[in-house]
Amino acid sequence: VLARLVREKLESLLDESYGTLAALLERWRGRIRAAFPDVTARRGLYESIVRGRVTALLRSGRGAEAERELLVQVDAGQGQARAGSVVLVGAGPGDPGLLTLRALRALQEADVILHDRLVSEEILDLARRDAQRIPVGKEAGHHSVPQAAINELMAQHAQAGRRVVRMKGGDPFVFGRGGEELEYLRALGIAYEVVPGITAAAACGAYAGIPLTHRDHSQSLRLVTAHCDPSGEGLDWRALASGRQTLAFYMGVARLGTVAEKLTEHGRAASTPVAIVENGTRHDQRVTIARLADLAAIAELGGVRAPALLIVGEVAALGAQLHWFGATPRLWPADVDQPAAVDEAA
Amino acid sequence: VLARLVREKLESLLDESYGTLAALLERWRGRIRAAFPDVTARRGLYESIVRGRVTALLRSGRGAEAERELLVQVDAGQGQARAGSVVLVGAGPGDPGLLTLRALRALQEADVILHDRLVSEEILDLARRDAQRIPVGKEAGHHSVPQAAINELMAQHAQAGRRVVRMKGGDPFVFGRGGEELEYLRALGIAYEVVPGITAAAACGAYAGIPLTHRDHSQSLRLVTAHCDPSGEGLDWRALASGRQTLAFYMGVARLGTVAEKLTEHGRAASTPVAIVENGTRHDQRVTIARLADLAAIAELGGVRAPALLIVGEVAALGAQLHWFGATPRLWPADVDQPAAVDEAA
Repeated sequence: VLARLVREKLESLLDESYGTLAALLERWRGRIRAAFPDVTARRGLYESIVRGRVTALLRSGRGAEAERELLVQVDAGQGQARAGSVVLVGAGPGDPGLLTLRALRALQEADVILHDRLVSEEILDLARRDAQRIPVGKEAGHHSVPQAAINELMAQHAQAGRRVVRMKGGDPFVFGRGGEELEYLRALGIAYEVVPGITAAAACGAYAGIPLTHRDHSQSLRLVTAHCDPSGEGLDWRALASGRQTLAFYMGVARLGTVAEKLTEHGRAASTPVAIVENGTRHDQRVTIARLADLAAIAELGGVRAPALLIVGEVAALGAQLHWFGATPRLWPADVDQPAAVDEAA
Repeated sequence: VLARLVREKLESLLDESYGTLAALLERWRGRIRAAFPDVTARRGLYESIVRGRVTALLRSGRGAEAERELLVQVDAGQGQARAGSVVLVGAGPGDPGLLTLRALRALQEADVILHDRLVSEEILDLARRDAQRIPVGKEAGHHSVPQAAINELMAQHAQAGRRVVRMKGGDPFVFGRGGEELEYLRALGIAYEVVPGITAAAACGAYAGIPLTHRDHSQSLRLVTAHCDPSGEGLDWRALASGRQTLAFYMGVARLGTVAEKLTEHGRAASTPVAIVENGTRHDQRVTIARLADLAAIAELGGVRAPALLIVGEVAALGAQLHWFGATPRLWPADVDQPAAVDEAA
């Protein structure tokens, strides 16, 4: 039964661009044979095409350009000197099952993988065995390799003709500095693609049973970081404190108290439900459901550890009923059987 | 070369829970054989276990419960009467490559698929051929089947012992009413899982080369809908108009003018860059880059069609340089070679 299940999965594996690629190669088969009479050289060309720019163009919906690029490579006999490229990939929150199919493909085609330390081993193990893995940061908000050095590494490997995957936790364009990396690559004329990832808010919401928006409670979702701004002075707390919206804070555990203080200072009710999701989507996921007023105490006594996401808003209370993954959520304060946050949601 | 590439992909296919499942079945093999001496009945039990609640529990990180459930099924000889369940799945924006591995697995295990009309054929084709597909809405914001009827359909199929996938475009918890559906299932005691999806903002940002947050421009991202609120009166425009944040509007094309009017009225500069992404991630993706002041004209003259996402904020201008997928973005007004929005980003 297991074997049959596996077989079923195979059907869906092929990238939809492979059919197009096969047809394209079939069409120019004669010309390829003539230009590359040697079998080994021909294999090199095919290798270059399948893993290289032609396939990337097909995947980017540029069929005509792909065909032109193919012919350029064939005519120039450039089978060996393929152009390198960078794929900026979002790895999602940690569960390898939350990788996208495109992310998996990029990993499997990469020669070099520059990855944040937050990207899990299980995910990196999906790469080709002979791919070079280079950890470059960041760990809980601290960049272990400066951004300029990361940029140079990407460029250096791509310019040497390698397929580089730059893999970041979550989504590369949500607090990921992906934009800065693309600006650098663009300036050097290096080809790139971007594969979005499941960002922590969506992942933690789903796995904690907390709908981020809800017709009755919240018509807007706001993703906020405070990593680069310890005091929180750069944030518009007045706007953040306004009601009927859900806030997801990507931030250090140490700031839980500050967030609560600032939000209540600017008018959000101290009784607003909150949820802290530690190790979201991982088997050791822990969810704490409380109220805004409890955050300082939780930070001090709750043993909360990074990576953690803070969700603020009426929807947070729904996790007490709708949870389905991993351990049952911890209700805070722990000595009360049914805290008010849960009653409100009932 | 293509064949080898395909082979490489196979390695990564197996759900990490299969190893655990195989070990679990191995451990209780003797008891299973004793309880189900008949081969056909035994196969039915295995089928039920692999596709059913035991595997779902393993995937939810509940190993001990999975083992208990296995033994209950074995002892009760309930091989045939497996319990149904619902998986709430985010299908992402349209490109099948943006499905997560978990979403793909859920599709392939489903007996019944209740899907929004926005979910693409290419994605639905990844399901088992004999799965029943039921379109239930919604199409560009209009629910063709009332929510109560969708809820009843889910419950009815699950209670008949089927594995139901409820598939929504984007992410089920971001403007997807997923929370309401879970509340309904929870009340009936029907088991469920949630698989997050790539929401339109992340998808369109990635495929249009628009970083949603950027150290220099935006430290916060806000996802907003106006579908259920034509006048926009329910939105806190004052908070939305505050600077240094990126806004992503999930909304009808007809409201472009209203958004521009409200935002400028509440203080956001008329020169703020905006991007409209039509058919994001699809081969016919079209991106229009303009300024807030141009939105009314674009709505009237630009031929913009749903589904479209509106991105408001300084980062929108970066798409003019960082785009990589599909057609080159249209700069508005079209007769100006380099609109100011692009200059600002340079």
